Order: sequence, then structure tokens, then C-alpha cells
Amino acid sequence: MTTETNSEVGAALEHLREHQDRHLQELDEFLRIESVSADPAKAGEVKRAAQWIMRELTRIGFDQVTSHETSGHPIVTAEWLHAGPDRPTVLVYCHYDVQPADPLEEWVRPPFDPRHEDGRVYARGAGDDKGQVFIHLKAAEAWMVSAGRLPINLRIFFEGDEEVGSEPADEFIAAHPELLAADLCVVSDTGMQDDEGTPAITYGLRGIAYFEVRVSGPFQDLHSGGYGGAIANPATVLVELLAGLHDEHGRITIPGFYDRVRPLTDADRAASAAVPFDEDEFRELTGVPQLWSGEEGYTVAERISVRPTLDINGIWSGYAGEGAKTIIPASAIAKFSTRLVPDQDFHEIERLVVEHMRRIAPPGVGVEVRIIHGGAPALTELDHPGVAVAASALEAAFGKPPVFLRSGGSIPVVAALMAHVGLSSVLVGFASPNGNFHAPNEWMPIANLTGGMEAIVLLWGELGEMTADQLRTG
Amino acid sequence: MTTETNSEVGAALEHLREHQDRHLQELDEFLRIESVSADPAKAGEVKRAAQWIMRELTRIGFDQVTSHETSGHPIVTAEWLHAGPDRPTVLVYCHYDVQPADPLEEWVRPPFDPRHEDGRVYARGAGDDKGQVFIHLKAAEAWMVSAGRLPINLRIFFEGDEEVGSEPADEFIAAHPELLAADLCVVSDTGMQDDEGTPAITYGLRGIAYFEVRVSGPFQDLHSGGYGGAIANPATVLVELLAGLHDEHGRITIPGFYDRVRPLTDADRAASAAVPFDEDEFRELTGVPQLWSGEEGYTVAERISVRPTLDINGIWSGYAGEGAKTIIPASAIAKFSTRLVPDQDFHEIERLVVEHMRRIAPPGVGVEVRIIHGGAPALTELDHPGVAVAASALEAAFGKPPVFLRSGGSIPVVAALMAHVGLSSVLVGFASPNGNFHAPNEWMPIANLTGGMEAIVLLWGELGEMTADQLRTG
Repeated sequence: MTTETNSEVGAALEHLREHQDRHLQELDEFLRIESVSADPAKAGEVKRAAQWIMRELTRIGFDQVTSHETSGHPIVTAEWLHAGPDRPTVLVYCHYDVQPADPLEEWVRPPFDPRHEDGRVYARGAGDDKGQVFIHLKAAEAWMVSAGRLPINLRIFFEGDEEVGSEPADEFIAAHPELLAADLCVVSDTGMQDDEGTPAITYGLRGIAYFEVRVSGPFQDLHSGGYGGAIANPATVLVELLAGLHDEHGRITIPGFYDRVRPLTDADRAASAAVPFDEDEFRELTGVPQLWSGEEGYTVAERISVRPTLDINGIWSGYAGEGAKTIIPASAIAKFSTRLVPDQDFHEIERLVVEHMRRIAPPGVGVEVRIIHGGAPALTELDHPGVAVAASALEAAFGKPPVFLRSGGSIPVVAALMAHVGLSSVLVGFASPNGNFHAPNEWMPIANLTGGMEAIVLLWGELGEMTADQLRTG
Repeated sequence: MTTETNSEVGAALEHLREHQDRHLQELDEFLRIESVSADPAKAGEVKRAAQWIMRELTRIGFDQVTSHETSGHPIVTAEWLHAGPDRPTVLVYCHYDVQPADPLEEWVRPPFDPRHEDGRVYARGAGDDKGQVFIHLKAAEAWMVSAGRLPINLRIFFEGDEEVGSEPADEFIAAHPELLAADLCVVSDTGMQDDEGTPAITYGLRGIAYFEVRVSGPFQDLHSGGYGGAIANPATVLVELLAGLHDEHGRITIPGFYDRVRPLTDADRAASAAVPFDEDEFRELTGVPQLWSGEEGYTVAERISVRPTLDINGIWSGYAGEGAKTIIPASAIAKFSTRLVPDQDFHEIERLVVEHMRRIAPPGVGVEVRIIHGGAPALTELDHPGVAVAASALEAAFGKPPVFLRSGGSIPVVAALMAHVGLSSVLVGFASPNGNFHAPNEWMPIANLTGGMEAIVLLWGELGEMTADQLRTG
């Protein structure tokens, strides 16, 4: 780094340390907004979160701060392009929507009233992903306040539909590539390696295809004494349909499902084995007595990252109250989703699942499959020059080099940015791997928030030393 | 009938016809009480229903009107034993509790605000079984008001736990046989043959064993991207456990389940085939596109009455809200029940089910089976002298002879009364076979209410012509 950059970075880091308490209070304000994208009743709250971000971006000094109407929730874009045409342009992607908070009764602290305890912030969205939106806001602010400028050209792309499949973001990427044009995309929606401050760069993501299946039987619930034995029970049909989706080897039975799965090479397996992974510790964190034997022939680490899976996410039918109700339920419904790996195509998987369910549906009931959402799997190139710079910034901020991970989760826009904008992404995430995303009692280590802000300040500083050309070509 | 009895019966029937409108208003008052036995929050309402009945019994002139505390809801007993020791003593059994009303949104009219439309009373409990409690109250009242007496000795046994398995009634029968001693039990908790006024006497009932199974996995819901493939999904385990309970021939797979099922004789099958049963009409009433193929080798009529069955009554796990939530649920729960036939023993079936579920439970999850309630199957002797008298009274009231049915439903006390009091039951029921018991929009034909009151007035009159000895021995 040049001396000038070095001193600017130092000033920006100093600004962050000085205002840490105030920043954490501002984060609480953001986390209090109940931006649950899945719940139509919370649409106003999602919008309020977008407006909160826009106010911050404007205050920091971004231009063209814009909220885009979509088929879902607003997309917020902004830009600061005054670093000069030879400096790199980076696109930052995060999402400001959160998972639903239910089951509410399992939260020890209220999901939308953040608590700071034991060095953690507890709240829905603290890690996934509002805390990481906030990291980027504060890193940019630190540069602007202390240096009066950013060392690179920066574009912002924050969406509000990630937790419901990112369909509006996909459409937006296809329609407005000019607003997203950059030399590199930095995505912060993943985690660190552990809770001991080991940073991580994620280079692979699973895709997803999410379904809802409804089995319809009689007009209404029937007396199981008067009709039991003569009427196909929709709940029984549903459990039989779902139970048949795995075979006794833990493999998914949908014909064609594995056709495009890229076989693991010896190098892939070696890379996976090289990442520290303690099965006992992993098991203890989940509370299960024993891990699932799962798909035969693959390690636990492989099964949660590089192999496709199918999980029931919800099921409901009939009587769930106290005691007994002797009925044949009128209908039965389940939500289930598959995690996809390269080169599975989520549109094809959607078709295969719908066809399979239609084929195996027995007579005497109606079976209807709805596609809820889908997203493509993604792999980013480890030899992209941005990866080395990111690794260096992470090491400087956390005092340890990052590990390189393939994640079991899905971030649909990563594949879409590559397809429509030709843009490579580097996934630099700061959440705890044990931070209860999508679960009750979500939390984020405060050290990861502050370390994350410092890492991004450093990353912009190091990228500012490169030309756009160098970043693109290495 | 003697001329005196004949004229007393005539006066009692006249009383019923004269006060029909007032009686129906009184029934509405009774139906408004939300005596849902399964819901702990409704315990006060169940008690209020018992108190309502006690007020009526006292007003009519019964002695020893008593509410007995039980492990569940109150049991109401009463007696009128002034017909003389040589006259028959009859025990009347009905239940005043009702099924839960949910799903509430499927009721066209409110479940606890009775509506009289198209010759029907619509309300939860109108047919099952408060309407039939009411028939007995009004038949006794008609005799007492018009003749100043009953022609037989009458005992009353009304319970409030039938819809949750009658365990308190079973305990009561074992503990207080002296309060139930009689020459015959008349049970009104079944239906007519059709909606054209063909009466029915039910001589067989299925037993029941009702279970709740809970599969427990991780401490809390987990992200399906981060853990999918490594953790046994409790919802998947539950659907696999439940799907395995039937084989491809529609038979129940629990080892030993069929061991005590009495094989159908040619005579049994002929008797079943002789009862008019229109499969198309039956199917149309349920709204299913096609009846279930069910257990191989048995007709629909046999499968809903003389063969055992297993039905899922409820299942729930994970996310049931709008859109998508990508979780592995922490737990999954189902309620399921078996209908039993002679000579299955519900205690043995409970043991077999619990053992089977334990045996097939996979590692990686906890599987816990709770027994919710059970009841024995029952067959009453068609050659009991009470059956012929009941048939004659039904024919007189409805203008058609009754058909003789085996029902698929369960009334646990019938077997318990035989076991502990040595008491035979004749099941004279007035509900519509299509009256939506245990379902939304329950209804009772008004003609069955009025015809039922007349039939019971006639039945008491005819039994009053017999000696106790004649009724016991034929």
C-alpha cells in the first residue's frame, strides 16, 4: 500500500474504533425493523428497511440512491463512481430481508428487539444478513468521513427477497445490467470458519428448488370410524409420497435428479477434506444424538456442501390440538426443497419434481405441486485476482489467513450475476457458522461486526491500489 | 299393548307434537354450550353442559340426580325406579361432549349458534350426541307430564369424555356397577340407515386405539442449506415411519396386528352384503374422485365396519406460513388411530404399536409414542329380547322396519358395560349417516329428532308391558 493509502486506511479504522458504540446502536435500529420477506403482512416493514438503508446511503454520500419497484420487495441501488475510470469498480451485494421468526416461543430474547450479551448481538437478521449490510454501510462511511473519498468506484445492490428465492433480483439483473456493471462483485452473506476469528472465503454455493405439495381428498374432514378404510387419507397419501423421495441409501429417487451432478474429483474431495471439520463438535451444536448416515459414500462435510439434498421444511394436516380428534383430514400440505450443486439446472429440477409427483400420485386424491422458488448453484474461480486481495484484507483484519469453503446454502444472485453481467463474485462473509440463521435465537459476534468493517475498509484500500485492468485480468 | 298403556303412549306422543317448537328452542340452548371435551380451555363449558342436563333431569322428576367428579369431565347419573320391582330396568347411555369445531373457517354456519334450515338443525353436537341426549330427556318428560309416571324403571348415564376416549366412564363403570345395574342398556349415539327415515339398530362397533408420535431432532430448527444432508430431518423420519404402516395391499404392517381379528364367516359377509349400500352415493357424499382401493379382498362396506383400519388424524412440523422457509424442523408430530374389530384387544394393540414404532425408529432422532386413548370393539346379541322390542318401537315411530348394522365407529362404554356390569346394549340411534359428525357443518334432521322422541316413548311403553324377567331372558 502507498503511504497515503496506508494513512487513509489507518484513519478510517480509527474512525470505526472511536464510534463503535454508536454504530452498534444504529445497527439495533436497523434490526428492529421486521423485514420478513415471506410474510405479506410484513411488506410495509420490508419497505421501511429499504428506506432506512437509502437514508444511510444518502447521508454517507452515495449518488443515484434509488429504490426500484419489483414483483416483490424493493431493490436498493446506489453508486459512488468518483475514484476515476482506471480504478476498479466493485459491486456490493447483500440482502436486507430476513427469515420469519416463528416459532416465536423458542426465542429466549425477542427476535426484533436486539440484545447485546456475551459479546453477541441477538436478533433476527443479526447475521443473515442485515448485520452484513451494516458492515458495508459503516466501512464506506468510515472512508468517506475520514478520507472524504472512496479509493475505488463502488456500486450497491441490496435486495429484499433473498429469503424467498431472489426472483425479483434475478429479473432486475437481467433487465438492468448497466446498474451492476463492475470488475468484481463482493457478496457478504456467508460465515466465518469458526467462532475463534478464522475468516473464510466461500467459493461454492448450492442452488435451490422449493416446492409446496397439496393432497386433496374429501370435501371436508370425515369421521375416521364411518369412513376409515374406504377413503384414501390425504395425510397418509402425503407421507407415502414424501417417504418415497429417498431410497434406503439416502439417495433422492426423482428420476433424472442426479443426471447433471458434476462428479467429485479426487482434488475436490481432497479440498473438502483439507478444511478443518470436527463432526463431534458439529453434532453437539445441533443437539442430535447422532448424525444422519445420509447419502452413502460421502462424508458429512461433502453432504452439507457439494452433494444435493432434499428436506421437508414443513408439513401440516388435520388435527393438531390437545387430545384426540378422530378424523380423516380433508387435505394435507407439505413444503420441501432440494439443494442443488453444479451443474444441476433448477428449472429442470422443478420440472422433474413436478412430473415425478404427478406420476406417483395415487387415484382417489388430488395432488398439486406448486413451485415456490428456485436458484442456480454457483462456483467462483479461486484464481480470480480479487480472491487474493480479499484473502489479504481478511488476514490483516483478523490476524489469520482465511479458509476456502464451499457452502451448503444458496445465494441465487451469484449465478445470475455471472450469467447476465459476466461478473465474478467473491464471497466474504462475517456471520458465525453457529449463528442460528433461519432458526430461533439468531446471533452475530460483535467481534465479527467490527472485524468485518475493518476488513472491508482494508479491502477497498487494497483494491484501490490496483487498476481496473489488473483486477479484471490478474 | 294394554289399552291403558296405549292411551298413555298416545298422550305422551300428543304432548311431544304439541310442544315441538318449544322443544327445539330448548335444544338450541343446549347446543350453544361449547362442550368440547378435547380442549382443556373448554372444561368450564363441558361442566355447564352437565349442569344443564342435571337441571332438566331434576325438573322432569328424576331422583338422585348426581354429577360425579372423574379424572376427566363430570358423569351425570339419575334414576326413576318407581315402576315396581317386576318391571324392567333400563339404563340409558349417551354423551354430552362434542368434537372440536376446528377448522372453524369451513363452517358455513357458526358451530355453536344453532341454525334451523331445510328441515335440519346445524350445530356441533346436533347429531353426535347432544341431540340424542335431548331425545331421551324429552321422551322421559313426555311420559312424566302426560302420565305422571314412567312405565319402566329408568337409569341415566351421560358422560362428557366420549370424544376423548371414555376413560373416566370406563373407570366409573368398574367402580360403580350398582348405579348402572339394569336389564338392558339403550345407547343412542349412532345413526339411521339413510335420510329417507329408515331406522337402524347397530349391533357391532369397532374399538379404537389412538396414538401421538413425536420425532425429535436438533435443539431447534436448523438452516437446511447448512445442515441438509448431515442431520436426520424429523419430518422426513416421521413420514417414513407413518408411510411404512400400510403395505402395498392396504394392510397394516404392525406385527401381530391381525392376530386376533375374527375371520369373517360366509354368514357375516352375506349379512354385510344384505344391507343396502350404494358405493356411488357414498363416494359422492365425500367428494372424493374415487374410493380407496383399501385392504385387498374386502368390499367397501366391509372395510368401513368389520375390518380394522389405521388413519392419520393429524400431522404437523416446521413451517406452515406463506412462501418459503428453508429449515430442517426441530421436531415432527402426528396423531394416528386404529379402528379395531372383535376380538382385538386395545391394550394389546397399544403395546404392539408402541413396540413396533420403537423397533423401526432410526438413529439420529428421538421417537416417542404416547397412547392417547383406547376402547374395545363390541358386538351385541341380535337375539336379545330387547332388540325385537326396539325394532317394533322404531317401526311404529318411523313406519318402516329397522335395518341391522355394524358400525365403523367406536363407543367404548358398550364393551365396558358388558365386562363389568354384565349388561347388554341395544344401539338405537337417530343421527343422519351423512350428518358430518367430527367434521365441519354437523347437522341433524329435525324429523329424526321428533321421530326419535316418539320411538323412545313407544319403546318405554312396550318394555313396560314386559316383566324384568322376560326382558332378561326372552
